[in-house]
Amino acid sequence: MKERNERHIKWHTSGITREDRERMNGHRSCILWLTGLSGSGKSTLAAAIENELHKQHCRTYILDGDNLRHGINRDLGFGPEDRSENIRRIGEIAKLLADAGMITIVAAISPYRQDRDKVRALCKPGDFIEVYVQCTVEECERRDPKGLYKKARSGEIMHFTGLSAPYEPPLRAELVLKTDERSVADSVIEVMAYIRSRLLAPSSLETEMEP
Amino acid sequence: MKERNERHIKWHTSGITREDRERMNGHRSCILWLTGLSGSGKSTLAAAIENELHKQHCRTYILDGDNLRHGINRDLGFGPEDRSENIRRIGEIAKLLADAGMITIVAAISPYRQDRDKVRALCKPGDFIEVYVQCTVEECERRDPKGLYKKARSGEIMHFTGLSAPYEPPLRAELVLKTDERSVADSVIEVMAYIRSRLLAPSSLETEMEP
Repeated sequence: MKERNERHIKWHTSGITREDRERMNGHRSCILWLTGLSGSGKSTLAAAIENELHKQHCRTYILDGDNLRHGINRDLGFGPEDRSENIRRIGEIAKLLADAGMITIVAAISPYRQDRDKVRALCKPGDFIEVYVQCTVEECERRDPKGLYKKARSGEIMHFTGLSAPYEPPLRAELVLKTDERSVADSVIEVMAYIRSRLLAPSSLETEMEP
Repeated sequence: MKERNERHIKWHTSGITREDRERMNGHRSCILWLTGLSGSGKSTLAAAIENELHKQHCRTYILDGDNLRHGINRDLGFGPEDRSENIRRIGEIAKLLADAGMITIVAAISPYRQDRDKVRALCKPGDFIEVYVQCTVEECERRDPKGLYKKARSGEIMHFTGLSAPYEPPLRAELVLKTDERSVADSVIEVMAYIRSRLLAPSSLETEMEP
């Protein structure tokens, strides 16, 4: 029995707003959502982007899909329904972190377009920056940094994205980083240029954030 | 079918650590976990504590149990199992926010001792600060700020903590705030003294955080 008392639940607002936090931090917050195949370079890029942002005194946090499966998403498997719930929860947490003033970097395969679009729909326009970490499945398999493609080929892992489970590439990603053609450093430069123009410019922070 | 591929999931570490973030922020992070009956004053206290911390240039965030039920926990009801899952998820999110460098204030009834203790066990010693927002059920019902006790008495809400569902008070809370005996301002002073001695002292930040 699961009675839903939702209509009795009041929304509480604290006096401190996201704008207060952004002003304290000196930059806007957002969600950089890195999607792509296993081995495409999401975690590597996330760490490199975070390093660069930290140097510039920005508040950042990485939500790594793999790490979250050891914690909040430990009850979820890899079937389609659980993958969707996995992404729904990551999206909700990313939204909280952005509200907390952090530039939130998500690194998660997030194979289904619909799931990513649902997260986008949760967010204010401009908050969700979809970054397609693009790499051919052949190159990902050649890299195979965790030996997972090998295990998927041998049947040890089922429902493996790119081989035995689908990956739906973004149709309107804000950024596309082709990691089989460009260096990590070049990709970071592109991301930083994007972020700088939208999140770090102090004048826009002043102008847009004052009522 | 839910195959668990957990053993194939690698843990990724970014170069930026919690200690880096704490150093940038000038204070340590932690989880202030406010537990108590509906109407005991958790949300009011959370907002007042956050205001005070913000004035002191601290990075803070409130996780309000009610608000989360509109987002990440919207799939959960109010039976014992769902209440436990509710608290498990709030605990995992609070841990992420503390790792992100925030003084994280949780305001959630969190009626079961075992659930709170599980969150404590997830955290490093000293990170989880249990704050018992103590108030008699009679006084909470007299206040009834959301009209929920009335609805619970009339049978419109079932499994209502304190009336038709249990509340298990903490046995070893770090702080006990008796909101039926003291003002909000006095309670905030007590919390701030606790936090100041443990999280804000710059010398301890230096000493304890350097290897």
